[in-house]
Amino acid sequence: MGTAKTELREALRTKANLLRIHSIRTTTKAGSGHPTTCLSAADLVAALFFYGLRADPTQPQHPRNDRVVFSKGHAAPLLYAAWAEAGAFPVEHLDTLREFESDLEGHPTPRFAWHPVATGSLGQGLSIAAGMALGLKREGNPARVYCLMGDGETAEGAVWEAAAFATYYGLDNLIAIVDINRLGQSQHTMLQHDLDAYARRFAAFGWAVLPIDGHDFDQILDALDQAQQADKPAVILARTVKGKGATAVEDKDGWHGKPLPPELAEQAIAALMPTPEQIARAAHLRPLPPNTDGSERRNIAEKQPPLWSPVEGGQEAQATLPTYPIGQMVATREAYGDALVALGKVEPHLYVLDGDVKNSTFAEKFAHAFPERFIECFIAEQNMVGVAVGLATLGKLPFASSFACFLTRAFDFIRMAAIGRANIKLCGSHAGVSIGEDGPSQMGLEDIAMMRAIPGSAVLYPADAVAAAKLVEQMARYPGIAYLRTTRPKTPVLYNHDEPFPIGGCKVLRVSNADVATVVGAGITLHEALKAYELLQAEGIAIRVIDLYSVKPLDEATLIRCGQETKGTLIVVEDHYPEGGMGEAVAAAVQGHGIRVHSLAVREIPRSGKPEQLLRAYGIDATAIVQTVRRLLARSA
Amino acid sequence: MGTAKTELREALRTKANLLRIHSIRTTTKAGSGHPTTCLSAADLVAALFFYGLRADPTQPQHPRNDRVVFSKGHAAPLLYAAWAEAGAFPVEHLDTLREFESDLEGHPTPRFAWHPVATGSLGQGLSIAAGMALGLKREGNPARVYCLMGDGETAEGAVWEAAAFATYYGLDNLIAIVDINRLGQSQHTMLQHDLDAYARRFAAFGWAVLPIDGHDFDQILDALDQAQQADKPAVILARTVKGKGATAVEDKDGWHGKPLPPELAEQAIAALMPTPEQIARAAHLRPLPPNTDGSERRNIAEKQPPLWSPVEGGQEAQATLPTYPIGQMVATREAYGDALVALGKVEPHLYVLDGDVKNSTFAEKFAHAFPERFIECFIAEQNMVGVAVGLATLGKLPFASSFACFLTRAFDFIRMAAIGRANIKLCGSHAGVSIGEDGPSQMGLEDIAMMRAIPGSAVLYPADAVAAAKLVEQMARYPGIAYLRTTRPKTPVLYNHDEPFPIGGCKVLRVSNADVATVVGAGITLHEALKAYELLQAEGIAIRVIDLYSVKPLDEATLIRCGQETKGTLIVVEDHYPEGGMGEAVAAAVQGHGIRVHSLAVREIPRSGKPEQLLRAYGIDATAIVQTVRRLLARSA
Repeated sequence: MGTAKTELREALRTKANLLRIHSIRTTTKAGSGHPTTCLSAADLVAALFFYGLRADPTQPQHPRNDRVVFSKGHAAPLLYAAWAEAGAFPVEHLDTLREFESDLEGHPTPRFAWHPVATGSLGQGLSIAAGMALGLKREGNPARVYCLMGDGETAEGAVWEAAAFATYYGLDNLIAIVDINRLGQSQHTMLQHDLDAYARRFAAFGWAVLPIDGHDFDQILDALDQAQQADKPAVILARTVKGKGATAVEDKDGWHGKPLPPELAEQAIAALMPTPEQIARAAHLRPLPPNTDGSERRNIAEKQPPLWSPVEGGQEAQATLPTYPIGQMVATREAYGDALVALGKVEPHLYVLDGDVKNSTFAEKFAHAFPERFIECFIAEQNMVGVAVGLATLGKLPFASSFACFLTRAFDFIRMAAIGRANIKLCGSHAGVSIGEDGPSQMGLEDIAMMRAIPGSAVLYPADAVAAAKLVEQMARYPGIAYLRTTRPKTPVLYNHDEPFPIGGCKVLRVSNADVATVVGAGITLHEALKAYELLQAEGIAIRVIDLYSVKPLDEATLIRCGQETKGTLIVVEDHYPEGGMGEAVAAAVQGHGIRVHSLAVREIPRSGKPEQLLRAYGIDATAIVQTVRRLLARSA
Repeated sequence: MGTAKTELREALRTKANLLRIHSIRTTTKAGSGHPTTCLSAADLVAALFFYGLRADPTQPQHPRNDRVVFSKGHAAPLLYAAWAEAGAFPVEHLDTLREFESDLEGHPTPRFAWHPVATGSLGQGLSIAAGMALGLKREGNPARVYCLMGDGETAEGAVWEAAAFATYYGLDNLIAIVDINRLGQSQHTMLQHDLDAYARRFAAFGWAVLPIDGHDFDQILDALDQAQQADKPAVILARTVKGKGATAVEDKDGWHGKPLPPELAEQAIAALMPTPEQIARAAHLRPLPPNTDGSERRNIAEKQPPLWSPVEGGQEAQATLPTYPIGQMVATREAYGDALVALGKVEPHLYVLDGDVKNSTFAEKFAHAFPERFIECFIAEQNMVGVAVGLATLGKLPFASSFACFLTRAFDFIRMAAIGRANIKLCGSHAGVSIGEDGPSQMGLEDIAMMRAIPGSAVLYPADAVAAAKLVEQMARYPGIAYLRTTRPKTPVLYNHDEPFPIGGCKVLRVSNADVATVVGAGITLHEALKAYELLQAEGIAIRVIDLYSVKPLDEATLIRCGQETKGTLIVVEDHYPEGGMGEAVAAAVQGHGIRVHSLAVREIPRSGKPEQLLRAYGIDATAIVQTVRRLLARSA
């Protein structure tokens, strides 16, 4: 036994030093990168890949592979080196690090097939890993999820959101490894090498804690064993030395995010280089094969077949969406809940996540219908989005909802989800001043700007229950991040149940040859536009009315055509701040076509008050529209 | 002793029930609100206001007042009732709760003079309170800061960012009170009434923990005593009953955010109503006067005079800004650091906050020059912004900086800071694809959209070091949230040191009567525009070039004039996504004036690569500008 263990230890040390050498060489060659943060974690990662991990390196999509998330994304060279040494691809490919055509980016993205998410904004990986772990548990998949974290990133609150979540859901298939190398980017970390403090914090959050010397293979292997056997989420707290192995920079400030100069790199590589015999003795090391029987896992909640494919169900499934009679008063947020239930019946991948507002967003309808695919994330929106991203990597179709304003909490997570090409869906309820008395802190007034700025996103804003339900179905089919904005008050149903709502379209609801302007509304303001139509009609003035339910992508052609047909006048009315909202989107889309866009939007910080009072006070109600039309007519007369 | 204590207890119980009655009556009258969350905390708040607190209710601006932050902003009726009962204003005023003209909004804003910040997005108050506490300590002010929190909001990671921060900075003048009423909005909380778990978590984060029955005045008073005497931040963990005192709804799900129906309200009020004798015996209760000698406080770091006024220094002070010779290569981020040092010399209120990237943002220059006014917030951007908001309430002038992309982490805090009319300054470095090899996770490409959508904000984007330094000075003078976007690579100095950069202006750098188009750039793209000018000039084509250093507010008049003078053509080039960026801002500003705006922006998720390679690949470099101009000329020919 002693001999075998000694040999394993030596072989792992060899692998670790090869990982160090790759990390040093490739960053020096690239002229940028974070070698010292790779060096501190190299022993941990060597032990993880060549002792703890079960995965087929040649099949990154294998459903039973253990998952590895590098939350400390700046250790990307180490990640790439580990998969190369594991046999995923030739080590020569590592030399393309940070080149434009390479999949080996400065921080990991899913362009690197072995890392299905993007990291590099610190403190996000554990939430994603927790989402993967919960998804795997719910489908009865015995794979584990490993998350490598930096010590500095544990200052991010999202880490503690994820820690609490993992405990609440009993994620014993989740193992975090914290590389406690004491040094952040610009100085020492808050807790430096105080492993006890880390242990107290994670233990208090309900985790099994395993404090070790992160350069002692006996301790590392023992910790991996114990973590795998723990009956709760486990964290290996590894005391390490930043720059370990490159003696000139070990434990020194000022070497974060800097490649070693060529001479230093050469020195370090020479000192680290194993002998050919050592390399030969380590050559057999590979990750263990994926666990395909599942017998060793405890607490398997469900016995569904494993899923590991892009969403297809949504393309095929024909959901029976709820119907609402025209004129009935129904809040779009309620239709969101109805539609989730309808889709959930035909789309087995559909999951719904909530941030303790499910009775307001109406996600509770899904929670009641499909509790096994509902995940209460409590008041922690960042973690909620991270969990959604993790679920999406398993081929699940997560819808996460909260108040529109509180999704701003997760902007960085949403941004990273986009970089990670995550197929997640978001819904923000209680948009705009129309929520009324709860006041500005509860009003989503910048969510359109935020979600439009997500590359590849769809931003949808239904005015009635039919449109809301149809758009939920469209979101499910949309490849990527789609956002639905719902409204608190009930609004009358406008559309027949067979009306289609393709993403990228709009509805021209009132039209005549005599229209003097086109009023563009969405959500609550569409109803104000329709009221304005009636008021103006009584004065003999005709206006065109457009329902801009798809804010992104925009139906530019229809907007331009209508603008040109109505004296070159578009009036865009939105329950949102002007910046980045519908008015600017329309102005940018139609400019150059001789159309004047008048924007009615919320131009100051609103107050508490009655919804109709606030729509009036901030100039986005029917009266404001009527006055604008009259003013324009007077001016042109 | 026993008698005095018994009498105090009875009087506090009377006050608590009066607070309950106000909370029930005003929400039922308003027809909305969160009475049950007020009822659980009423005993705690009565004891805080009429036993623990030192404050002059008639002088909400008194510098030595203890500060009270209601992080659980939905308990606003209780906050208002407490100040009314404390003598701040007549209790009759409480009847205006949630009315449009009232300062008593649904969630607190600074329109209510006794609450200098906005709350209502949960999990933010502790960061703000920590900022206040640190500011008070640094100025030697003996006042304490009390923060009332809900239990549900401790799921927000920002709470743990603040908890770690408070411990790191030894904030023994900070006392949190967690109202653990077990019920969130839509269901029970994660930890329900597990006070041990709360205690373990806060203790692990370094706090003095005081678990109590939150309806037992002996325990509450004892806990307040101990918290005041603690030599570290202290948290009172109070087990309470949601709806306490309104027996029909006590500890019941489904009563969050709902006023009691009139009959239930009447019943509850009748049961709670103290006798006239009890009211008379409680009438003398008032907060203790402010501590004006300071002798009882320990660990007072500095003996500066207390500050409690809007920033004035910045208006008067004449900083000697750094100068840079034209043509020198200087990164705007470095000029930011230089300017902070220069301003710090004349502006004693100026504080600088960092999220462990001070060597990248160059905030480290200020850290070295004025360590006593520098605050390292580590990798926790939400808390950093919250701390800045807290400091601003003390009349300090905080500049907080990180990578532009990581400020998205704090969007909800920035949004709330705006609602709270906070005078804070933000700087985001490493904007856009021009950062190069680190890849998309590190590139700020949506920060302009985010910061433009903040009401009242200024968004500034200098192209050279002179402009950067001047704009930092402008930010200091700007009343409200101002944002500076800086660039990673060095760029040549363009301006003389005496060039003014007023907020809302722009610079027309190249102009002739023969200009065929106006190219609008800012930051890195201005330099590309200037290169394009040279390239086109060699072909005999003249273009106008504008430096749009003030993205918000915009110099609309100059943009329109230049557009009209250059064949109605504006080409806006930005290292940012198109949505909510410079192109849309310009398009919205000039539309209706016969000007066509061509937007060159980053239209896909970028990759790692060399800066010039990326500017090229995403079509925002000089070549792209030249090609656009040529194409437009060909089209019009």
